[in-house]
Amino acid sequence: MEPESFEFYWEDFPVGQLRPMGRHRFTQEEIIAFAQQYDRQRYHLDPERAAQTLFGGLIASGWHTCAIAMRGMCEAYLSRAACLGSPGLESLKWLKPVRPGDEIEFRAKVLEARVSERRPEVGLTKFLWDGVNGAGEPVLTMEGWQMFSRRSADSGGRTT
Amino acid sequence: MEPESFEFYWEDFPVGQLRPMGRHRFTQEEIIAFAQQYDRQRYHLDPERAAQTLFGGLIASGWHTCAIAMRGMCEAYLSRAACLGSPGLESLKWLKPVRPGDEIEFRAKVLEARVSERRPEVGLTKFLWDGVNGAGEPVLTMEGWQMFSRRSADSGGRTT
Repeated sequence: MEPESFEFYWEDFPVGQLRPMGRHRFTQEEIIAFAQQYDRQRYHLDPERAAQTLFGGLIASGWHTCAIAMRGMCEAYLSRAACLGSPGLESLKWLKPVRPGDEIEFRAKVLEARVSERRPEVGLTKFLWDGVNGAGEPVLTMEGWQMFSRRSADSGGRTT
Repeated sequence: MEPESFEFYWEDFPVGQLRPMGRHRFTQEEIIAFAQQYDRQRYHLDPERAAQTLFGGLIASGWHTCAIAMRGMCEAYLSRAACLGSPGLESLKWLKPVRPGDEIEFRAKVLEARVSERRPEVGLTKFLWDGVNGAGEPVLTMEGWQMFSRRSADSGGRTT
Protein backbone atom coordinates (compact mmCIF):
# COMPACT_ATOMS: atom_id res chain seq x y z
CA MET A 1 0.00 0.00 0.00
CA GLU A 2 1.36 3.41 -0.89
CA PRO A 3 1.75 5.90 1.95
CA GLU A 4 0.31 8.80 -0.02
CA SER A 5 -3.37 9.48 -0.53
CA PHE A 6 -4.96 10.64 -3.77
CA GLU A 7 -7.88 12.72 -4.99
CA PHE A 8 -9.17 10.00 -7.34
CA TYR A 9 -9.59 6.25 -6.78
CA TRP A 10 -11.29 3.59 -8.91
CA GLU A 11 -14.71 4.50 -7.45
CA ASP A 12 -14.41 8.02 -8.85
CA PHE A 13 -14.75 6.86 -12.47
CA PRO A 14 -18.29 5.43 -12.85
CA VAL A 15 -19.45 4.09 -16.21
CA GLY A 16 -20.78 6.86 -18.44
CA GLN A 17 -18.77 9.63 -16.80
CA LEU A 18 -17.52 12.28 -19.22
CA ARG A 19 -14.55 14.41 -18.23
CA PRO A 20 -13.00 17.27 -20.22
CA MET A 21 -9.21 17.00 -20.63
CA GLY A 22 -8.58 20.55 -21.87
CA ARG A 23 -7.79 22.11 -25.21
CA HIS A 24 -4.55 22.55 -27.06
CA ARG A 25 -3.67 24.69 -30.08
CA PHE A 26 -0.99 23.01 -32.21
CA THR A 27 1.49 25.50 -33.67
CA GLN A 28 3.68 24.92 -36.72
CA GLU A 29 6.78 25.40 -34.58
CA GLU A 30 5.68 22.79 -32.06
CA ILE A 31 4.63 20.29 -34.75
CA ILE A 32 8.05 20.53 -36.41
CA ALA A 33 9.93 20.36 -33.09
CA PHE A 34 8.14 17.14 -32.08
CA ALA A 35 8.72 15.63 -35.53
CA GLN A 36 12.43 16.49 -35.47
CA GLN A 37 12.78 14.62 -32.21
CA TYR A 38 10.58 11.57 -32.81
CA ASP A 39 8.90 11.34 -36.22
CA ARG A 40 11.01 12.55 -39.13
CA GLN A 41 8.50 12.13 -41.96
CA ARG A 42 8.21 14.79 -44.64
CA TYR A 43 4.61 15.78 -43.87
CA HIS A 44 5.41 16.36 -40.18
CA LEU A 45 8.76 18.08 -40.70
CA ASP A 46 8.90 20.32 -43.73
CA PRO A 47 6.03 22.59 -44.92
CA GLU A 48 7.29 22.66 -48.52
CA ARG A 49 7.66 18.89 -48.90
CA ALA A 50 4.38 18.42 -46.99
CA ALA A 51 2.58 20.61 -49.55
CA GLN A 52 3.51 18.06 -52.25
CA THR A 53 1.92 15.16 -50.38
CA LEU A 54 -1.70 14.05 -50.33
CA PHE A 55 -2.07 15.95 -47.04
CA GLY A 56 -1.45 19.23 -48.91
CA GLY A 57 0.53 20.73 -46.04
CA LEU A 58 2.12 20.15 -42.67
CA ILE A 59 0.32 17.84 -40.21
CA ALA A 60 1.17 16.86 -36.65
CA SER A 61 2.66 13.44 -35.89
CA GLY A 62 -0.03 11.14 -34.54
CA TRP A 63 2.30 10.49 -31.59
CA HIS A 64 2.38 14.21 -30.91
CA THR A 65 -1.43 14.28 -30.72
CA CYS A 66 -1.30 11.29 -28.34
CA ALA A 67 1.36 12.94 -26.16
CA ILE A 68 -0.73 16.11 -25.85
CA ALA A 69 -3.82 14.01 -25.05
CA MET A 70 -1.77 12.30 -22.33
CA ARG A 71 -0.70 15.65 -20.92
CA GLY A 72 -4.33 16.74 -20.80
CA MET A 73 -5.31 13.44 -19.15
CA CYS A 74 -2.68 13.94 -16.43
CA GLU A 75 -3.89 17.49 -15.77
CA ALA A 76 -7.54 16.43 -15.75
CA TYR A 77 -7.24 13.47 -13.37
CA LEU A 78 -4.33 11.09 -13.75
CA SER A 79 -1.64 13.04 -11.87
CA ARG A 80 -3.98 13.10 -8.84
CA ALA A 81 -5.21 9.53 -9.15
CA ALA A 82 -4.14 6.29 -7.43
CA CYS A 83 -3.37 4.92 -10.88
CA LEU A 84 -1.42 1.67 -11.11
CA GLY A 85 -0.65 1.88 -14.82
CA SER A 86 -2.11 0.63 -18.08
CA PRO A 87 -1.50 -2.55 -20.08
CA GLY A 88 -1.88 -0.63 -23.35
CA LEU A 89 -4.59 0.37 -25.80
CA GLU A 90 -7.14 -1.80 -27.55
CA SER A 91 -7.57 0.76 -30.28
CA LEU A 92 -5.80 3.92 -31.43
CA LYS A 93 -7.17 5.85 -34.40
CA TRP A 94 -5.76 8.89 -36.11
CA LEU A 95 -8.93 9.93 -37.92
CA LYS A 96 -8.14 13.38 -39.33
CA PRO A 97 -4.95 15.38 -39.82
CA VAL A 98 -4.10 17.96 -37.15
CA ARG A 99 -2.78 21.08 -38.87
CA PRO A 100 -0.93 24.18 -37.59
CA GLY A 101 -3.42 26.44 -35.82
CA ASP A 102 -5.91 23.64 -35.08
CA GLU A 103 -7.28 23.72 -31.57
CA ILE A 104 -8.12 20.25 -30.31
CA GLU A 105 -10.45 19.56 -27.40
CA PHE A 106 -9.67 16.35 -25.49
CA ARG A 107 -12.18 14.29 -23.48
CA ALA A 108 -12.40 11.08 -21.44
CA LYS A 109 -15.44 8.84 -21.26
CA VAL A 110 -15.76 5.83 -18.95
CA LEU A 111 -16.93 2.77 -20.91
CA GLU A 112 -16.56 -0.09 -18.41
CA ALA A 113 -15.47 -0.64 -14.82
CA ARG A 114 -14.77 -3.80 -12.86
CA VAL A 115 -12.87 -5.07 -9.85
CA SER A 116 -9.84 -7.25 -10.43
CA GLU A 117 -10.63 -10.89 -9.68
CA ARG A 118 -7.07 -11.68 -8.75
CA ARG A 119 -6.51 -8.51 -6.72
CA PRO A 120 -9.76 -7.23 -5.16
CA GLU A 121 -8.03 -4.07 -3.91
CA VAL A 122 -7.59 -3.03 -7.56
CA GLY A 123 -10.21 -1.79 -10.01
CA LEU A 124 -9.98 -1.64 -13.78
CA THR A 125 -11.58 1.09 -15.85
CA LYS A 126 -11.97 1.19 -19.61
CA PHE A 127 -11.91 4.64 -21.15
CA LEU A 128 -12.58 6.15 -24.53
CA TRP A 129 -10.36 9.21 -24.91
CA ASP A 130 -10.85 11.44 -27.90
CA GLY A 131 -9.73 14.71 -29.46
CA VAL A 132 -12.09 16.87 -31.51
CA ASN A 133 -11.17 19.77 -33.80
CA GLY A 134 -12.88 23.13 -34.23
CA ALA A 135 -15.16 21.67 -36.92
CA GLY A 136 -16.41 19.08 -34.42
CA GLU A 137 -14.58 16.23 -36.16
CA PRO A 138 -12.79 13.63 -34.05
CA VAL A 139 -9.09 13.61 -34.96
CA LEU A 140 -8.03 10.98 -32.41
CA THR A 141 -9.75 8.16 -30.51
CA MET A 142 -8.10 5.78 -28.05
CA GLU A 143 -9.64 2.95 -26.05
CA GLY A 144 -7.89 1.21 -23.23
CA TRP A 145 -7.84 0.17 -19.59
CA GLN A 146 -6.33 1.92 -16.60
CA MET A 147 -5.88 0.29 -13.20
CA PHE A 148 -6.56 2.15 -9.98
CA SER A 149 -6.42 1.39 -6.27
CA ARG A 150 -9.88 1.10 -4.76
CA ARG A 151 -10.83 3.68 -2.20
CA SER A 152 -12.26 1.05 0.09
CA ALA A 153 -9.00 -0.86 -0.01
CA ASP A 154 -7.25 2.23 1.32
CA SER A 155 -9.70 3.01 4.08
CA GLY A 156 -10.37 -0.62 4.95
CA GLY A 157 -6.76 -1.27 5.85
CA ARG A 158 -6.36 -4.24 3.52
CA THR A 159 -2.85 -4.99 2.41
CA THR A 160 -1.80 -5.76 -1.16
CA MET B 1 1.86 12.08 -57.63
CA GLU B 2 4.70 13.49 -55.58
CA PRO B 3 7.67 14.88 -57.51
CA GLU B 4 10.25 13.27 -55.24
CA SER B 5 11.38 9.68 -55.42
CA PHE B 6 12.01 7.42 -52.46
CA GLU B 7 14.19 4.50 -51.44
CA PHE B 8 11.26 2.37 -50.24
CA TYR B 9 7.85 1.75 -51.84
CA TRP B 10 5.09 -0.71 -50.90
CA GLU B 11 6.83 -3.52 -52.83
CA ASP B 12 9.85 -3.23 -50.53
CA PHE B 13 7.97 -4.64 -47.52
CA PRO B 14 7.09 -8.24 -48.35
CA VAL B 15 5.21 -10.39 -45.81
CA GLY B 16 7.57 -11.98 -43.32
CA GLN B 17 10.28 -9.35 -43.67
CA LEU B 18 12.08 -8.54 -40.42
CA ARG B 19 13.87 -5.20 -40.10
CA PRO B 20 15.91 -3.96 -37.13
CA MET B 21 14.95 -0.46 -35.95
CA GLY B 22 17.97 0.18 -33.71
CA ARG B 23 18.57 0.20 -30.00
CA HIS B 24 18.07 2.87 -27.40
CA ARG B 25 19.26 3.13 -23.80
CA PHE B 26 16.75 4.97 -21.63
CA THR B 27 18.41 7.22 -19.04
CA GLN B 28 16.79 8.47 -15.85
CA GLU B 29 17.25 12.06 -17.00
CA GLU B 30 15.49 11.40 -20.31
CA ILE B 31 12.64 9.44 -18.67
CA ILE B 32 11.96 12.32 -16.26
CA ALA B 33 12.25 14.98 -19.01
CA PHE B 34 9.67 13.20 -21.20
CA ALA B 35 7.34 12.71 -18.23
CA GLN B 36 7.58 16.38 -17.23
CA GLN B 37 6.47 17.37 -20.69
CA TYR B 38 3.76 14.81 -21.41
CA ASP B 39 3.03 12.27 -18.67
CA ARG B 40 3.19 13.66 -15.14
CA GLN B 41 2.54 10.47 -13.18
CA ARG B 42 4.50 9.75 -10.02
CA TYR B 43 6.23 6.58 -11.31
CA HIS B 44 7.51 8.38 -14.43
CA LEU B 45 8.51 11.62 -12.73
CA ASP B 46 9.93 11.17 -9.28
CA PRO B 47 12.31 8.35 -8.21
CA GLU B 48 11.33 8.64 -4.54
CA ARG B 49 7.57 8.51 -5.08
CA ALA B 50 8.10 5.82 -7.74
CA ALA B 51 9.89 3.65 -5.18
CA GLN B 52 6.68 3.57 -3.10
CA THR B 53 4.57 2.23 -5.98
CA LEU B 54 4.10 -1.33 -7.15
CA PHE B 55 6.73 -0.63 -9.81
CA GLY B 56 9.36 -0.19 -7.07
CA GLY B 57 11.11 2.61 -8.92
CA LEU B 58 11.10 4.95 -11.87
CA ILE B 59 9.73 3.63 -15.17
CA ALA B 60 9.48 5.30 -18.58
CA SER B 61 6.12 6.59 -19.85
CA GLY B 62 4.66 4.13 -22.35
CA TRP B 63 4.34 7.07 -24.75
CA HIS B 64 8.06 7.69 -24.37
CA THR B 65 8.78 4.10 -25.42
CA CYS B 66 6.42 4.55 -28.40
CA ALA B 67 8.08 7.82 -29.41
CA ILE B 68 11.53 6.22 -29.34
CA ALA B 69 10.20 3.26 -31.36
CA MET B 70 8.84 5.76 -33.88
CA ARG B 71 12.22 7.50 -34.09
CA GLY B 72 13.87 4.15 -34.76
CA MET B 73 11.23 3.33 -37.38
CA CYS B 74 11.93 6.62 -39.19
CA GLU B 75 15.67 5.97 -39.16
CA ALA B 76 15.26 2.36 -40.29
CA TYR B 77 12.91 2.98 -43.22
CA LEU B 78 10.07 5.45 -42.83
CA SER B 79 11.93 8.71 -43.47
CA ARG B 80 13.08 7.29 -46.82
CA ALA B 81 9.78 5.65 -47.77
CA ALA B 82 6.88 6.82 -49.96
CA CYS B 83 4.63 6.51 -46.91
CA LEU B 84 1.15 8.01 -47.09
CA GLY B 85 0.38 7.80 -43.38
CA SER B 86 -1.32 5.42 -41.01
CA PRO B 87 -4.93 5.16 -39.82
CA GLY B 88 -3.79 4.11 -36.35
CA LEU B 89 -2.94 0.99 -34.40
CA GLU B 90 -5.02 -2.13 -33.91
CA SER B 91 -3.12 -3.02 -30.78
CA LEU B 92 -0.63 -1.30 -28.48
CA LYS B 93 0.76 -3.21 -25.49
CA TRP B 94 3.07 -2.02 -22.77
CA LEU B 95 4.16 -5.42 -21.50
CA LYS B 96 7.01 -4.70 -19.10
CA PRO B 97 8.31 -1.57 -17.41
CA VAL B 98 11.27 0.21 -19.03
CA ARG B 99 13.66 1.34 -16.30
CA PRO B 100 16.61 3.74 -16.26
CA GLY B 101 19.59 2.06 -17.91
CA ASP B 102 17.48 -0.43 -19.90
CA GLU B 103 18.60 -0.82 -23.49
CA ILE B 104 15.67 -1.64 -25.77
CA GLU B 105 16.05 -3.17 -29.21
CA PHE B 106 13.27 -2.24 -31.66
CA ARG B 107 12.18 -4.31 -34.67
CA ALA B 108 9.58 -4.31 -37.47
CA LYS B 109 7.97 -7.42 -38.92
CA VAL B 110 5.66 -7.40 -41.95
CA LEU B 111 2.46 -9.35 -41.17
CA GLU B 112 0.23 -8.61 -44.19
CA ALA B 113 0.35 -6.68 -47.45
CA ARG B 114 -2.35 -5.80 -49.97
CA VAL B 115 -3.20 -3.33 -52.68
CA SER B 116 -5.93 -0.78 -52.00
CA GLU B 117 -9.12 -1.69 -53.83
CA ARG B 118 -10.22 1.90 -54.09
CA ARG B 119 -6.82 3.29 -55.03
CA PRO B 120 -4.71 0.71 -56.90
CA GLU B 121 -1.67 2.98 -56.86
CA VAL B 122 -1.58 2.55 -53.06
CA GLY B 123 -0.49 -0.48 -51.06
CA LEU B 124 -1.26 -1.24 -47.43
CA THR B 125 1.13 -3.04 -45.14
CA LYS B 126 0.44 -4.41 -41.68
CA PHE B 127 3.39 -4.40 -39.32
CA LEU B 128 4.17 -5.78 -35.91
CA TRP B 129 6.67 -3.45 -34.25
CA ASP B 130 8.21 -4.48 -30.98
CA GLY B 131 10.80 -3.51 -28.41
CA VAL B 132 12.79 -6.10 -26.44
CA ASN B 133 14.89 -5.52 -23.32
CA GLY B 134 18.30 -6.95 -22.42
CA ALA B 135 16.67 -10.00 -20.81
CA GLY B 136 14.95 -10.78 -24.13
CA GLU B 137 11.51 -9.77 -22.81
CA PRO B 138 9.21 -7.76 -25.06
CA VAL B 139 8.39 -4.45 -23.37
CA LEU B 140 6.27 -3.02 -26.22
CA THR B 141 4.29 -4.44 -29.13
CA MET B 142 2.29 -2.43 -31.67
CA GLU B 143 0.29 -3.68 -34.63
CA GLY B 144 -1.01 -1.43 -37.36
CA TRP B 145 -1.19 -0.52 -41.02
CA GLN B 146 0.94 1.88 -43.02
CA MET B 147 0.06 3.04 -46.52
CA PHE B 148 2.70 3.41 -49.21
CA SER B 149 2.79 4.45 -52.87
CA ARG B 150 3.40 1.49 -55.14
CA ARG B 151 6.65 1.51 -57.08
CA SER B 152 4.85 0.47 -60.26
CA ALA B 153 2.44 3.38 -59.89
CA ASP B 154 5.41 5.73 -59.89
CA SER B 155 7.17 4.24 -62.90
CA GLY B 156 3.96 3.53 -64.80
CA GLY B 157 2.95 7.16 -64.91
CA ARG B 158 -0.50 6.66 -63.39
CA THR B 159 -2.03 9.65 -61.71
CA THR B 160 -3.75 9.64 -58.34
